[in-house]
Amino acid sequence: AKPPNMVFMLMDDMGWGDLGVYGNAAKETPNLDKMAAEGMLLPSFYSANPLCSPSRAAMLTGRLPIRNGFYSTNAHARNAYTPQNIVGGIPDSEILFPELLLQAGYATKIIGKWHLGQQPQYHPLKHGFHEWFGSPNCHFGPYNDVTTPNIPVYRNASMAGRYYTDFPINRSTGESNLTQLYIQEAVDFIHKSVGAGSPFFLYWTPDATHDPLYASKTFLRTSSRGLYGDAVRELDYGVGVILKLLTQLGVASDTLVIFSSDNGGATYAKEMGGSNGPFLCGKETTFEGGMREPTIAWWPGTVAGGTVSHQLGSMMDWFSTALDLAEIKEPDDRIIDGMSLLPILVNGTVTDRPVFYYRGDELMAVRYQMYKAHYWTWTNSIDEFNHGTDFCPGEEIANVTTHDQVNHTSQPLLFHLGRDPGEKYLIKPKTAEYIEAMKLIQPIVDEHHKTLVKGAPQLNYCDPAVMNWAPPGCEDLDQCLPVPHHDQTLCYWPH
Amino acid sequence: AKPPNMVFMLMDDMGWGDLGVYGNAAKETPNLDKMAAEGMLLPSFYSANPLCSPSRAAMLTGRLPIRNGFYSTNAHARNAYTPQNIVGGIPDSEILFPELLLQAGYATKIIGKWHLGQQPQYHPLKHGFHEWFGSPNCHFGPYNDVTTPNIPVYRNASMAGRYYTDFPINRSTGESNLTQLYIQEAVDFIHKSVGAGSPFFLYWTPDATHDPLYASKTFLRTSSRGLYGDAVRELDYGVGVILKLLTQLGVASDTLVIFSSDNGGATYAKEMGGSNGPFLCGKETTFEGGMREPTIAWWPGTVAGGTVSHQLGSMMDWFSTALDLAEIKEPDDRIIDGMSLLPILVNGTVTDRPVFYYRGDELMAVRYQMYKAHYWTWTNSIDEFNHGTDFCPGEEIANVTTHDQVNHTSQPLLFHLGRDPGEKYLIKPKTAEYIEAMKLIQPIVDEHHKTLVKGAPQLNYCDPAVMNWAPPGCEDLDQCLPVPHHDQTLCYWPH
Ligand SMILES: [Ca+2]
Ligand SMILES: [Ca+2]
Repeated sequence: AKPPNMVFMLMDDMGWGDLGVYGNAAKETPNLDKMAAEGMLLPSFYSANPLCSPSRAAMLTGRLPIRNGFYSTNAHARNAYTPQNIVGGIPDSEILFPELLLQAGYATKIIGKWHLGQQPQYHPLKHGFHEWFGSPNCHFGPYNDVTTPNIPVYRNASMAGRYYTDFPINRSTGESNLTQLYIQEAVDFIHKSVGAGSPFFLYWTPDATHDPLYASKTFLRTSSRGLYGDAVRELDYGVGVILKLLTQLGVASDTLVIFSSDNGGATYAKEMGGSNGPFLCGKETTFEGGMREPTIAWWPGTVAGGTVSHQLGSMMDWFSTALDLAEIKEPDDRIIDGMSLLPILVNGTVTDRPVFYYRGDELMAVRYQMYKAHYWTWTNSIDEFNHGTDFCPGEEIANVTTHDQVNHTSQPLLFHLGRDPGEKYLIKPKTAEYIEAMKLIQPIVDEHHKTLVKGAPQLNYCDPAVMNWAPPGCEDLDQCLPVPHHDQTLCYWPH
Repeated sequence: AKPPNMVFMLMDDMGWGDLGVYGNAAKETPNLDKMAAEGMLLPSFYSANPLCSPSRAAMLTGRLPIRNGFYSTNAHARNAYTPQNIVGGIPDSEILFPELLLQAGYATKIIGKWHLGQQPQYHPLKHGFHEWFGSPNCHFGPYNDVTTPNIPVYRNASMAGRYYTDFPINRSTGESNLTQLYIQEAVDFIHKSVGAGSPFFLYWTPDATHDPLYASKTFLRTSSRGLYGDAVRELDYGVGVILKLLTQLGVASDTLVIFSSDNGGATYAKEMGGSNGPFLCGKETTFEGGMREPTIAWWPGTVAGGTVSHQLGSMMDWFSTALDLAEIKEPDDRIIDGMSLLPILVNGTVTDRPVFYYRGDELMAVRYQMYKAHYWTWTNSIDEFNHGTDFCPGEEIANVTTHDQVNHTSQPLLFHLGRDPGEKYLIKPKTAEYIEAMKLIQPIVDEHHKTLVKGAPQLNYCDPAVMNWAPPGCEDLDQCLPVPHHDQTLCYWPH
């Protein structure tokens, strides 16, 4: 039988609490709420990292960033990603599940932000995708093409233009039709793939909810939540378009659709960031707000509608799930952190397994069953905080949301996420509950450290010469910028 | 035509974020979630006060506590209620909507906590109810019948026994079958009323989620959230029983059912309190966590299923709605703060109106449209806080969650609850947005103060002689305790 199609919708910096079905008071996500009503809600689902690049690399490789190299050793426990001066990217030695799907006959496409390296050898078409429409990096400024070039938007292996100049985002109003382009690309790809009769994998990953926010004119000022909500509404609309199309084309019952986000809402962006519902802090942190993701699975006829699974899930599980669905053997020459969610999706079974919360090179916390043990705590430096960057606005838990890196490994901070999802009330050491819980968790942590083979860190070096000055295809567009001299230095990761 | 039946389910200290449909991660409220799927969700619905007695008095009278007398002038802006040494209660001059329903031929019953005064002249049967099964006060200790008597449980006008002795609550395990009794009472009343053919009003108000928490053996240790979650699960089960019965008896289409809570989750109770989702602080405060209530309306065939109304609603609206449904003229000799929600329920219309947040004798804040202006801020005294009572655990917004009573009337603190439901990000005065919003709000506040006629405060005096030593009916049970001498003093309201 033909293996099922897969559509993975991965949002950027969207929070657990941004969806109506996950308790957002604005209730402005009717299509996602409908998707949940027709599918499975996974309220205990985690990204592998509290920020974009390592989270995305982990999802595609099924491996923790500490294994696949998406971390830095420049300083302890730092959040590192792929700004456009990053030298590294996804190593060729890593296997991305789209590579295996492609070998198995899938048509594969990524629409949106890649973030696994912007040098050409790291691009999607070198790592499992037939097609790409989107950008290698975030759509940051400074918009002048002098200190840094504007980020290119690619169509497949060649640039199609740049943000701001060719793909406008109005910096004062946030108006941009990019999400509409990404929706149209998805529609076209699905049409084409269904017509061709081959199974397809679509990785749909728009970035409208990543600061600087944007929405098209149709959606601007339509949300009670401001520009952030406008972006959410437009993405929700896009989800509706895609699900409706799958149904209309008669392939809904052959297609697993996953919706999730790459990391928690960016609470540091204040009103311009997402909501993490009842959870503590947000993006960049290993508290629940940083890594709990608003996840929905949809597969009419296979995944029962209106169900909820309390499975502790990880974005890395989509690697194993995709291979399972395509009946591809999982690589056995490396540790895979994901597990196939097929039994959960189909039968609603639940399997005990730990969740690891990493920040850079450090295992900060571990969840097992309802317990979460923090081995290290850190928000950001007191210096950053005093300059106005607050990862936990309005939230301060004494000895937990620390501005020093605090080592709790001799006596981890323990929370019960059922009674206390906000990580507010420490379970006292020496209590029977603490001792019993740590008896479960500590061996898992010891085993993890003992068997861990760290990948070579890919996010240590930065160099202005590797920026998107002259991307492939720039000649045809007459958009090549002069490349500065190499000046490779250790990247500075402040938090 | 026969007017519709009404069932108002009012929970005790349950938080907005405790229901699956309102974003609780445990998703342990399948019956409430189903109720919402078949009815209307009202995510912007408010109690009239952040604690029990005034909230309940306001719901039943349709009037703010400052008008109906459920406040104290012993000190400024204090939360006052009806402990069993309170002298006052609901004044005869107040009209409760069940009185009017009763006159119009409704069978009326309250099951659960009354909290409008424990002296016999204040009891439910004197204020509009044919029947009562429940207690006048909270089921607090100290359980010794010496310094205070245990709280009586009434059947109609006579006591049927007392908490702990006759209606057990196991203080170490929380085991108690009270919620089961309250469910059975509801079932019996509905059966009887449907059989009799008269319209009925059931006010179902169990208190299992009010500290000290309890649940029956069947539900104990079944929740991932601990004893609080056990209580929620049992109440959710009760909701399911009642809705199913209405359907089975063929009266669902003739019955408006409302679910809500009397005030926000008791965050000061830590893991033993409810969740207020993304909202700030909880019970006792005039932040959103103190007064935003998890509200659902259900009326198959009349209220469209799966709908959401963003109407700013108030518990006091049920007064006007009940009269509207029963085609009873609203009293015109007094100000009624409620408005009929019938157009909202039936047609989904939305009407602009303010929400007033009172604490005792002070108007602390006002919401209009998406804006909320704080005229006063206070959590609790620094002394109480330093002794371990924290109304905002882990949450601290500088100059907002103040431990002094701070007067902001000359320049109210303004928040936009759409972009910022957590009341974290002050809108700066002098900005156009601030000026425009305050142009809307200030005239409303001025008008409110100008037209306000305060009721005589009922919650100023306390006296050990008025406690439940010798409730009506105690003779028959041989449970009369000696009544101490009168010693009337001003009640002490610490916060
Ligand atoms: Ca991100
Ligand atoms: Ca209460």
